[in-house]
Amino acid sequence: MSELPNCETLLLELADGVLHVTLNRPESRNAMSLAMVEELRAVLAAVRDDSRVRALVLRGAGGHFCAGGDIKDMATARATGSDAYRQLNRAFGSLLEEAQAQPQVMVAVLEGAVLGGGFGLACISDIAIAHASAQFGLPETSLGILPAQIAPFVVKRIGLTQARRLALTAARFDGAEALRLGLVHFAEADGAVLEQRLAESLEQVRRCAPGANAQTKALLLATETEPLDTLLDHAAERFAAAVTGPEGAEGTMAFVQKRKPGWAQ
Amino acid sequence: MSELPNCETLLLELADGVLHVTLNRPESRNAMSLAMVEELRAVLAAVRDDSRVRALVLRGAGGHFCAGGDIKDMATARATGSDAYRQLNRAFGSLLEEAQAQPQVMVAVLEGAVLGGGFGLACISDIAIAHASAQFGLPETSLGILPAQIAPFVVKRIGLTQARRLALTAARFDGAEALRLGLVHFAEADGAVLEQRLAESLEQVRRCAPGANAQTKALLLATETEPLDTLLDHAAERFAAAVTGPEGAEGTMAFVQKRKPGWAQ
Amino acid sequence: MSELPNCETLLLELADGVLHVTLNRPESRNAMSLAMVEELRAVLAAVRDDSRVRALVLRGAGGHFCAGGDIKDMATARATGSDAYRQLNRAFGSLLEEAQAQPQVMVAVLEGAVLGGGFGLACISDIAIAHASAQFGLPETSLGILPAQIAPFVVKRIGLTQARRLALTAARFDGAEALRLGLVHFAEADGAVLEQRLAESLEQVRRCAPGANAQTKALLLATETEPLDTLLDHAAERFAAAVTGPEGAEGTMAFVQKRKPGWAQ
Repeated sequence: MSELPNCETLLLELADGVLHVTLNRPESRNAMSLAMVEELRAVLAAVRDDSRVRALVLRGAGGHFCAGGDIKDMATARATGSDAYRQLNRAFGSLLEEAQAQPQVMVAVLEGAVLGGGFGLACISDIAIAHASAQFGLPETSLGILPAQIAPFVVKRIGLTQARRLALTAARFDGAEALRLGLVHFAEADGAVLEQRLAESLEQVRRCAPGANAQTKALLLATETEPLDTLLDHAAERFAAAVTGPEGAEGTMAFVQKRKPGWAQ
Repeated sequence: MSELPNCETLLLELADGVLHVTLNRPESRNAMSLAMVEELRAVLAAVRDDSRVRALVLRGAGGHFCAGGDIKDMATARATGSDAYRQLNRAFGSLLEEAQAQPQVMVAVLEGAVLGGGFGLACISDIAIAHASAQFGLPETSLGILPAQIAPFVVKRIGLTQARRLALTAARFDGAEALRLGLVHFAEADGAVLEQRLAESLEQVRRCAPGANAQTKALLLATETEPLDTLLDHAAERFAAAVTGPEGAEGTMAFVQKRKPGWAQ
Repeated sequence: MSELPNCETLLLELADGVLHVTLNRPESRNAMSLAMVEELRAVLAAVRDDSRVRALVLRGAGGHFCAGGDIKDMATARATGSDAYRQLNRAFGSLLEEAQAQPQVMVAVLEGAVLGGGFGLACISDIAIAHASAQFGLPETSLGILPAQIAPFVVKRIGLTQARRLALTAARFDGAEALRLGLVHFAEADGAVLEQRLAESLEQVRRCAPGANAQTKALLLATETEPLDTLLDHAAERFAAAVTGPEGAEGTMAFVQKRKPGWAQ
């Protein structure tokens, strides 16, 4: 098993091939400090090549997901000049880029405050399950600042049409509306139903082959930047390798034999 | 009239400017064999420049649209090595590219299984009409393989947010949900209402000028790759040619004279 | 205050930092004449650098937003040859490009006919509020012409999947459906509620810092064309400048002091 880093701002628990990562600064609604950014990046790096980890579940302690940037942290950085802000901000963007590219399935459980940077973190999840009463919003412009690193991830997630209204009005909205906007995949009004939905989603992930999932995720993300013709050429090569590789052999044989494949036991 | 190819896996019927193409391998829920891919490509090529064909309606025989790749075909290819898989897979991608670029309006009628490659085929339609009970899904990763050629068409159709969950969980969903996800334009719970919706959509297509429709479709697809400024320059040239050409003259005159234009008779 | 141009086709009213622009050719359902295009471009240019103007509200006189291109204008241009059409069409595209890039928040109030060019104009708004009974549509192809300049803005607004059906069938739909398609942010069945929604949206805009809003809007639009890495680098620089600049200082201080920032008075 890969060595997980020691974390002060995160709780980590590995169970049944799923790494549960809990943002754990409840006193500040899990506001995103520089320490938390660096610890999250270290955790992602630690499990990146560990094929036994099939999914990561990201959520917050104390009833909130994440209220955004840490204003105290900003105050500290202010003393050290504008460049410290730039670096702090860019580090958060690197976290988003790395989390987006993580080969495992990223699941976000969104309760309470999902604001600013927390909103951005929600936007890189493969599966997003919200509590219907969660509070989403991009408050930056109402504070005289910018949703800088999260802008491209928000546009990619919900489209320019919705992103522009939300960013230019700092409007708040709940989980039910987040579902309507296509920001999340599920919105559950009841905590127990939400946990059931999470368990069901993880069960679905376990039915999919780990390697096939990692390659499929990379392929889906590549469609955003690679030209169609070359993408299809590469995809055909990867398809042939997958069918003739161990997962493809096991998966198609299990299908014919009407049994579960080895990875789904 | 263009010569239609002889087909073993497709039923073809031309009526009122509409070519009805029925996938006809009901014993395998119209699974996409190499023969079917090649016959579909030949049919598209045969009518591509035939302006009397205004629309193509794609559907499946026996209550299913298409259950995806043909596993028997895969088995045959397996004997001939990995490269055969690559070629088979890429040929299906070429079909999707060609169908996407087809100048006529592509209508898909989606009943029963709409899985894998069938899902991909649905994604290139201009008008998609589903039965509310149709079963959609991307089962590839649960078989240890990849939704390789269809990935870019799925992302383009429903966005990255929905595509990533569906591809990484192999979740099934019905036509009503397909409507909510923006994958289809209509979901009808009743077969007769579905046929009525199809007839109404074809009637709308007939009210539009064939040449204008072909050029508009090309223009919409070009917005995905061409820079905005040059696109608008070209669009203005095409607009001027259309207004001063025969369709523009007839269309605007018919509008002023409060009569149907010639192409809508 | 910036000097507003004299306009024959527009009514202009500036109040509380909001410029209300009313298309005023009710006899032709505010059809887009060349004069109207040029006057709109002049108005946008006049207030572009005026930070006291926080938002523009675009609507139509006489119960309609805009019925599209002016057929009489087209007839005049026809006499002068194909090149006049090209120029007229491209000028409208330039209006859309400029309106899209306008640093202020663009609000569209959509009542009655929202057709063709009017539909395109709706697509560049940051906040779109429709009457539930408004009539939307792209009638061009049914007239033998093309939705040429608006094509990229429509695809960007509602995605390729919806754009292709609407453009290739010339189908009409109402404000409630426009909400479902993600074309507008609100659809109100009652005129008074619509006005209340407009007032509320403008109030939200006033709570956001003008400079932060302008930079955020530019950033959101840049996500469509700039590569992710360089975009995030630039965004971090702009973030640092914003936090350490006057708006960031006032906004974060007001937050700590639990008072409204200066721009929201």
